[in-house]
Amino acid sequence: MDSMTMIALVSIVMAGLTTGFGTMGPALGEGRAVASALTSLAQQPDASATITRTLFVGLAMIESTAIYCFVVSMILLFANPFWNFALTQAQSTGH
Amino acid sequence: MDSMTMIALVSIVMAGLTTGFGTMGPALGEGRAVASALTSLAQQPDASATITRTLFVGLAMIESTAIYCFVVSMILLFANPFWNFALTQAQSTGH
Amino acid sequence: MDSMTMIALVSIVMAGLTTGFGTMGPALGEGRAVASALTSLAQQPDASATITRTLFVGLAMIESTAIYCFVVSMILLFANPFWNFALTQAQSTGH
Amino acid sequence: MDSMTMIALVSIVMAGLTTGFGTMGPALGEGRAVASALTSLAQQPDASATITRTLFVGLAMIESTAIYCFVVSMILLFANPFWNFALTQAQSTGH
Amino acid sequence: MDSMTMIALVSIVMAGLTTGFGTMGPALGEGRAVASALTSLAQQPDASATITRTLFVGLAMIESTAIYCFVVSMILLFANPFWNFALTQAQSTGH
Amino acid sequence: MDSMTMIALVSIVMAGLTTGFGTMGPALGEGRAVASALTSLAQQPDASATITRTLFVGLAMIESTAIYCFVVSMILLFANPFWNFALTQAQSTGH
Amino acid sequence: MDSMTMIALVSIVMAGLTTGFGTMGPALGEGRAVASALTSLAQQPDASATITRTLFVGLAMIESTAIYCFVVSMILLFANPFWNFALTQAQSTGH
Amino acid sequence: MDSMTMIALVSIVMAGLTTGFGTMGPALGEGRAVASALTSLAQQPDASATITRTLFVGLAMIESTAIYCFVVSMILLFANPFWNFALTQAQSTGH
Amino acid sequence: MDSMTMIALVSIVMAGLTTGFGTMGPALGEGRAVASALTSLAQQPDASATITRTLFVGLAMIESTAIYCFVVSMILLFANPFWNFALTQAQSTGH
Amino acid sequence: MDSMTMIALVSIVMAGLTTGFGTMGPALGEGRAVASALTSLAQQPDASATITRTLFVGLAMIESTAIYCFVVSMILLFANPFWNFALTQAQSTGH
Amino acid sequence: MDSMTMIALVSIVMAGLTTGFGTMGPALGEGRAVASALTSLAQQPDASATITRTLFVGLAMIESTAIYCFVVSMILLFANPFWNFALTQAQSTGH
Amino acid sequence: MDSMTMIALVSIVMAGLTTGFGTMGPALGEGRAVASALTSLAQQPDASATITRTLFVGLAMIESTAIYCFVVSMILLFANPFWNFALTQAQSTGH
Amino acid sequence: MDSMTMIALVSIVMAGLTTGFGTMGPALGEGRAVASALTSLAQQPDASATITRTLFVGLAMIESTAIYCFVVSMILLFANPFWNFALTQAQSTGH
Amino acid sequence: MDSMTMIALVSIVMAGLTTGFGTMGPALGEGRAVASALTSLAQQPDASATITRTLFVGLAMIESTAIYCFVVSMILLFANPFWNFALTQAQSTGH
Repeated sequence: MDSMTMIALVSIVMAGLTTGFGTMGPALGEGRAVASALTSLAQQPDASATITRTLFVGLAMIESTAIYCFVVSMILLFANPFWNFALTQAQSTGH
Repeated sequence: MDSMTMIALVSIVMAGLTTGFGTMGPALGEGRAVASALTSLAQQPDASATITRTLFVGLAMIESTAIYCFVVSMILLFANPFWNFALTQAQSTGH
Repeated sequence: MDSMTMIALVSIVMAGLTTGFGTMGPALGEGRAVASALTSLAQQPDASATITRTLFVGLAMIESTAIYCFVVSMILLFANPFWNFALTQAQSTGH
Repeated sequence: MDSMTMIALVSIVMAGLTTGFGTMGPALGEGRAVASALTSLAQQPDASATITRTLFVGLAMIESTAIYCFVVSMILLFANPFWNFALTQAQSTGH
Repeated sequence: MDSMTMIALVSIVMAGLTTGFGTMGPALGEGRAVASALTSLAQQPDASATITRTLFVGLAMIESTAIYCFVVSMILLFANPFWNFALTQAQSTGH
Repeated sequence: MDSMTMIALVSIVMAGLTTGFGTMGPALGEGRAVASALTSLAQQPDASATITRTLFVGLAMIESTAIYCFVVSMILLFANPFWNFALTQAQSTGH
Repeated sequence: MDSMTMIALVSIVMAGLTTGFGTMGPALGEGRAVASALTSLAQQPDASATITRTLFVGLAMIESTAIYCFVVSMILLFANPFWNFALTQAQSTGH
Repeated sequence: MDSMTMIALVSIVMAGLTTGFGTMGPALGEGRAVASALTSLAQQPDASATITRTLFVGLAMIESTAIYCFVVSMILLFANPFWNFALTQAQSTGH
Repeated sequence: MDSMTMIALVSIVMAGLTTGFGTMGPALGEGRAVASALTSLAQQPDASATITRTLFVGLAMIESTAIYCFVVSMILLFANPFWNFALTQAQSTGH
Repeated sequence: MDSMTMIALVSIVMAGLTTGFGTMGPALGEGRAVASALTSLAQQPDASATITRTLFVGLAMIESTAIYCFVVSMILLFANPFWNFALTQAQSTGH
Repeated sequence: MDSMTMIALVSIVMAGLTTGFGTMGPALGEGRAVASALTSLAQQPDASATITRTLFVGLAMIESTAIYCFVVSMILLFANPFWNFALTQAQSTGH
Repeated sequence: MDSMTMIALVSIVMAGLTTGFGTMGPALGEGRAVASALTSLAQQPDASATITRTLFVGLAMIESTAIYCFVVSMILLFANPFWNFALTQAQSTGH
Repeated sequence: MDSMTMIALVSIVMAGLTTGFGTMGPALGEGRAVASALTSLAQQPDASATITRTLFVGLAMIESTAIYCFVVSMILLFANPFWNFALTQAQSTGH
Repeated sequence: MDSMTMIALVSIVMAGLTTGFGTMGPALGEGRAVASALTSLAQQPDASATITRTLFVGLAMIESTAIYCFVVSMILLFANPFWNFALTQAQSTGH
């Protein structure tokens, strides 16, 4: 198995794993935050403006970790520096 | 086993794993959020408009992580850049 | 073992794993949501219309992640692009 | 070991695993839902009609994920497309 | 090791695993449901008819997932399509 | 290692595993049910008839899953269809 | 390594595993039941007859699963059908 | 490695594992039962006779599962039927 | 497989793992912090300024650990010292 | 590697594992019992005699499982029947 | 594979693992501390100065463990003593 | 690798594992006991003599399990019977 | 692979693992202690001096275990006795 | 790989593992004890002398298990009896 195939295989595996497992934490964290927001709204409807705003800031922070994972997956699939290097090398040597 | 078969195999495996495991977190998170919404509705029926709206925003945020996983699976199955490259290369060399 | 057999094997494995494990999260999440709905109904029977409607929307969202898994399984079994490609190639070369 | 035996082995393994593990989630989820229904009935016997109806809808939703698993198992055992293809090919070549 | 032995081995393994692990979920789920029923009976003895009826419906639903597992085990042991095919083939070729 | 030994080994392993692990769930489930029954009896001694009857029905349901496991173990040890087939074949060929 | 040694080894391993791990569930379940009985006795000393009787019935049910495990271990050690068959075969062939 | 050494090795391993892991459940279960007894004594000192008696019966039941494990370990070390058979065979053949 | 390919493979794997798993902790921690903030806001709306400020400081601290992971991933992908060394060495030796 | 070395190695490994892991359960169980005793003493100082006595009986029962593990370890290290047999055999054959 | 490549590979792996997993504990610990601080602020707004100061000291202590991990990762990547030694040796021997 | 080296290696490994993992249980158990003692002291300062005495007895019991582990480690390192035997044998044969 | 490389590799791996995993416990423990301190401060602001002092002593104790890990990592990286011995030996033999 | 290198490698691995994992339990246990002390101080500031003294005794007991681990690590690194023996033997034979 040549080098390019190996890099392709590993990139596919890690792209899937990084997104598939890396979104588990954010999903659970957001579920907790939303659940807590709804309980708070039921308890103190008058503070709904503050609660909603704080919730959205918090969700953005948590979502950012999911996006880190998605970004790494996309880099591995579409902008992989090692793949690009191998591609360049292969073309230059007419391999 | 040639390179194309390997890439096909790994893509199938990761497409399944990414969706199969990556949806576990969102499902649990959404279950928590919905459970909390229902408890809140029972406690404060008058705030049902705010609660429902916040719930839907939250579910959309959580669902987004499940969709990242599904998107990565679909990319691996139907728009896999490494497979396309291998396909192009195989056709050009008459392999 | 030739390429087509390998692709068939891996597709069978992932079809089972994706559905078998991927439905665990939704089942637990839905169980939590339904349990919470029943508690809420007992606490506030007058809000049964709102509670039931919110529950059904929530269950649909959670069920969607189970359906993603089932869809990926069905794609792997009956509309597998890599299998179709291998099939086409095998027929064209009279392999 | 020839291809048909391999496909048979993997199908048997996945049929068992998909049903055996995939029903764990629904069983726990339904247990939670039923437990919650009984607590609610004890708390608010007057709402038994609504509670029972909501419970049955919820159990149907949760059971559906168990049925997805059972269906995939049955497909793998009795309507396996890869096995059928291998069978057809074996008969046509007089293998 | 010939094909028939392999199929026999894998069928035995999966028959045991599917029943052995697949009944863990239902057992825990039923334990929870029964525990909840008893607590409810102690809290609201007057509703014993409704509680008992709902409990039995719930137990039947949960037990159904255990029965799926047992059915798959029995199919693998006594009505295994792949074993039957191998048996037929072996007899026809006088193997 | 001949086929019959392999089948014997795998049958022994699965007989032990199925009973050893498959009884863990029922034991925990029954412990929970009994614990709940005792709490209920202490809380509402007047309902002891109903509580005891419901407990016994519930224990029977939970015990049934343990019995499925024990039955599969006994089938594997004393009525194993694959072992019987191998035995018959060995005797008929004077192997 | 001949067949008889292999069967002996596997029987020893499974005899230990089945008892060693299979008694974990019953021990925890019984601990829970006893703990609950003691709490109930402290709360309602007048119902000690009913509580003690129900506890003993429950302990017997839970202990039965531990005994299944112990029985399977003893069968594997002292009444192993596969070992007996191998022994008979070895003696008849003067092996 | 001859058969007797293998049987000795496996017997040592399983003797340790069965006792080492099999006593974890009973230890935790007894801890729970004792903890509950002490709480009950503090709550209802007048019922100390009944509580202590029930505790001792319960501890005996739980300890019995630990003793099953210890017995299996001792059988494997000092009364191992397979070792005795191998020993007899070795002496009779002057091996 | 030459050294450069190995370094590339391992860098891809670790870039994915570090981000994919390393963001799980921060996501859960932030979810907890946000949930607690929302509960506090509902309980004491007057202290919203202090609560929000403390929340943001806390989120920044927690996010910093996620950023450590992301930074290590980026270093491994785009500023890997070992890859750079290998690259320099390869170019200087005309390898 | 000769038989005696193998037996020595396995005995060392199991002596460590049996004590190392087998004392985890008793330690946790005793911690729970002692914690409960202290809470009870604080709640009902007048019953300190009964509580202390019951605690010591309980600790003795739990400690007994730790001692089973330690005894098995010591048997394996200093009174190992298989090692003694091998030693006797080695000396008698002048091996 | 020569020594320098091995050292490079292992350093990359450990740099990622140390940061990726080592930040999980601090992130969860900080999440708990921040959550507790927010609850305390809501309960006792007057003590906000003391609470905030204690929180920051605590966060600094917890963050320090995350920084230990990050420092070890950076040492492994940029100041690895074993890599430096290998580099020096390679250059001195003109390898 | 000769026998003495193997025994040395395995002794080192088990000495570390036995102490490293075997102290986890006692540490957690003691933490629980101490925590409970402190809560009890705060609740009933007058009973501090009884509480402290019971705590010390309990800690001694729990610590004993940690000491079993440490003793086994020390035996393996400094009084290992198998190592001593091998040493004696090696010296007597001038090996 | 020569001895020095092996020692280097293993030292790198253990340096990372010891710090990466060994700081998880202290981080969680400190998080719990800080959280408890903040709750206590909110409940009893007057005792802030005692609480803060006790917290700092406690954090120092917990941090000490993290420092043990960091110290072992640093010893392995910069003062490894086995590496130093190998280095001395290599230099003296002109290896 | 010669014996001395193997002993060195295994000693490095176990030194790291014993400290890295063995301090997890004490850290969590101390965290719990400190947390409980702080809660107690807030509840009963007058008993601060007794609470602090008991806490310090408890922390010393728990810390002792961490110190056992650290001591074993240090023995393995700097006073390893097997390494010393190998060293002596190597020097005496001029190996």
